[in-house]
Amino acid sequence: MAAEIVNPRSDSETENNPDAAFALHRGGKMAVQATVPVRDKDDLSLAYTPGVAKVCSAIAEQPDLVHDYTWKSNVVAVVTDGTAVLGLGDIGPEASLPVMEGKAILFKQFGGVDAVPIALATKDTDEIIETVVRLAPSFGGVNLEDISAPRCFEIERRLQELVDIPVFHDDQHGTAIVSLAALRNAAKLTGRTLGDLRAVISGSGAAGIAIAKILVDAGIGDVCVTDRKGVVSADRADLTDVKAEIAALTNKSGLSGSLESAMAGADVFIGVSGGTVSEAAVASMAKNAFVFAMANPNPEVHPEVAHKYAAVVATGRSDFPNQINNVLAFPGIFAGALKVRASRITENMKIAAADAIAGVVADDELAADYVIPSPFDERVAKAVEAAVAAAARADGVARRP
Amino acid sequence: MAAEIVNPRSDSETENNPDAAFALHRGGKMAVQATVPVRDKDDLSLAYTPGVAKVCSAIAEQPDLVHDYTWKSNVVAVVTDGTAVLGLGDIGPEASLPVMEGKAILFKQFGGVDAVPIALATKDTDEIIETVVRLAPSFGGVNLEDISAPRCFEIERRLQELVDIPVFHDDQHGTAIVSLAALRNAAKLTGRTLGDLRAVISGSGAAGIAIAKILVDAGIGDVCVTDRKGVVSADRADLTDVKAEIAALTNKSGLSGSLESAMAGADVFIGVSGGTVSEAAVASMAKNAFVFAMANPNPEVHPEVAHKYAAVVATGRSDFPNQINNVLAFPGIFAGALKVRASRITENMKIAAADAIAGVVADDELAADYVIPSPFDERVAKAVEAAVAAAARADGVARRP
Repeated sequence: MAAEIVNPRSDSETENNPDAAFALHRGGKMAVQATVPVRDKDDLSLAYTPGVAKVCSAIAEQPDLVHDYTWKSNVVAVVTDGTAVLGLGDIGPEASLPVMEGKAILFKQFGGVDAVPIALATKDTDEIIETVVRLAPSFGGVNLEDISAPRCFEIERRLQELVDIPVFHDDQHGTAIVSLAALRNAAKLTGRTLGDLRAVISGSGAAGIAIAKILVDAGIGDVCVTDRKGVVSADRADLTDVKAEIAALTNKSGLSGSLESAMAGADVFIGVSGGTVSEAAVASMAKNAFVFAMANPNPEVHPEVAHKYAAVVATGRSDFPNQINNVLAFPGIFAGALKVRASRITENMKIAAADAIAGVVADDELAADYVIPSPFDERVAKAVEAAVAAAARADGVARRP
Repeated sequence: MAAEIVNPRSDSETENNPDAAFALHRGGKMAVQATVPVRDKDDLSLAYTPGVAKVCSAIAEQPDLVHDYTWKSNVVAVVTDGTAVLGLGDIGPEASLPVMEGKAILFKQFGGVDAVPIALATKDTDEIIETVVRLAPSFGGVNLEDISAPRCFEIERRLQELVDIPVFHDDQHGTAIVSLAALRNAAKLTGRTLGDLRAVISGSGAAGIAIAKILVDAGIGDVCVTDRKGVVSADRADLTDVKAEIAALTNKSGLSGSLESAMAGADVFIGVSGGTVSEAAVASMAKNAFVFAMANPNPEVHPEVAHKYAAVVATGRSDFPNQINNVLAFPGIFAGALKVRASRITENMKIAAADAIAGVVADDELAADYVIPSPFDERVAKAVEAAVAAAARADGVARRP
């Protein structure tokens, strides 16, 4: 989604050669490879029959061994129904496949995790859930991707209740985790704690809801979410279940009214809406405010404008400092969860991931234009993996040390 | 299944070191790899956002482009429910995974085809079908594997009606194709045609039924199938639908009674039952008979015994000549079907595959102990691929030249 855009401006190569993306995609972007030799009879007698039968029998007797002796130990299904793909919307499963393949190769490149694109020919919530339940024996985790709200919330929640492998909707939690990482470092830079801050989130889709939740769990002073009608407050009669739930968890100040009125005096603006906010609204924020304007390709407020008033500015774009990019989170999160065979991704694991991302920026490097590491910083996935594994152990969801 | 056993005798390595198979399987036998670079921002701007969006949009407008621009062009789902795994039976989806991974790496090694193990947590026929229908957008073909009879017949038939990619139950057709290849060459060696031959098949499971069908389609003189109660003949009242169908297609001679009585005077014995036949029954066959005793690890009749009476003997074992091994067929079949984007695998494509396998053995090499090429003969998959692609074009199921 928005936060994963690596280079939303027209890239010079694709701009000058519009066929470059098509040429690169021809035949797809990924392949399977054997990791054991298959050269002769002896090889096959171990990797296939008759040797394989001993391994099958051992797993039949002790099912948990499937994690030891198959690629389930390291493979994630990247599952979508193609309903909320990039900014393109509901383009269907086939058309979503290039994004799912892209995600799969990012899993491999950044986290060493194998991933398989699974674009489903159904948009029905129950059918998506039951299908993934049936696929679960073959995978070590499920990354839900580009499934439209509000179905994505129910699918993730119910699915996680039904399977014993981690289910993670990246459009929600990936964005939330990286946003929290940026916020941690911005607060540190300006000598504040999360408890000191009041945040306003523009957007109540997958990302907006998840960001609000993780900020509450991480101890934000106050946060409110806004949708097209303004602040999502408990007194509104038009709220969906998900929004009613978030209204109950947020908005301690009891705000109502427009997004821009909520921004007056706020310390943090987080935009995941695709809309815009006025310069006047940014100017009305508290001193040393943080503006995370993640709409793509056009941030809610241009970073140059935001910088006139804010202490720290972040976007979803790779051509400005402080890019909030999901790839900082998901590869290490699954690598860590798989490492300890976690049965789920807990809130503490998400917060640990955010802290690990933030921690990659050393105190003496921390600056207004460097609160978040580069997506290509190789330390990130390793740090996230270790932190997530430790948090899984602490939360009792790890099935091996 | 039986016919895929590469080395059913205790391999010296696994015999002397029972942990070798476990050591090799640790962490699984396969991985995913990116086939495009993912090193920097520019790479990602083509392989992921924003470049990928153009490709997605193009597929949304013209769905067939999914074959051009994703790995759907080269990836097969290896689908099982874990109910008929090797000789182990119904061991469940997790325990079947090592076999499915083994199959996947054979697809890659022999046919250059990517394959993904999908072991399903359901044995329900309708649920298996609907699940695979939902998975179909992500794959270029479906290899059904180790699903018990008679459900395997219905699943393959109904599934192929519902999806526009090839569905192929290897335990049926792989074995049938390689058996036909061996029979072609055995007939050539002894100066006969298929029309001259009467065959008896011991076993009415997935392989037995499929062998009978392909022999009829290839023009066998006569064939009958036997089960535990003897010849599957139209006058029996106890036949399942599948057996009733095969009874109507076979047994021109109107035989009834036991397997061994049917073997008297027969030209061909094909064993896919796991049972045994007596030396006397083999001795009662016609002159220059062919005995394909494919039960594993113990052939229905020992090859040395069969050789006393038969002109050509084949087994499923790698330690005797003429190994009937599915790996001769399935990699090239899917490679050929994917190459021309076939919508299904027709009977002619199967027969073309058999002829291609047989054709790899040159006339001047053909001998009683060499009617079938080695599984490691690199010419086989290429020949099968080309023959299957040509047959798909001829049958009008190819979607590109």
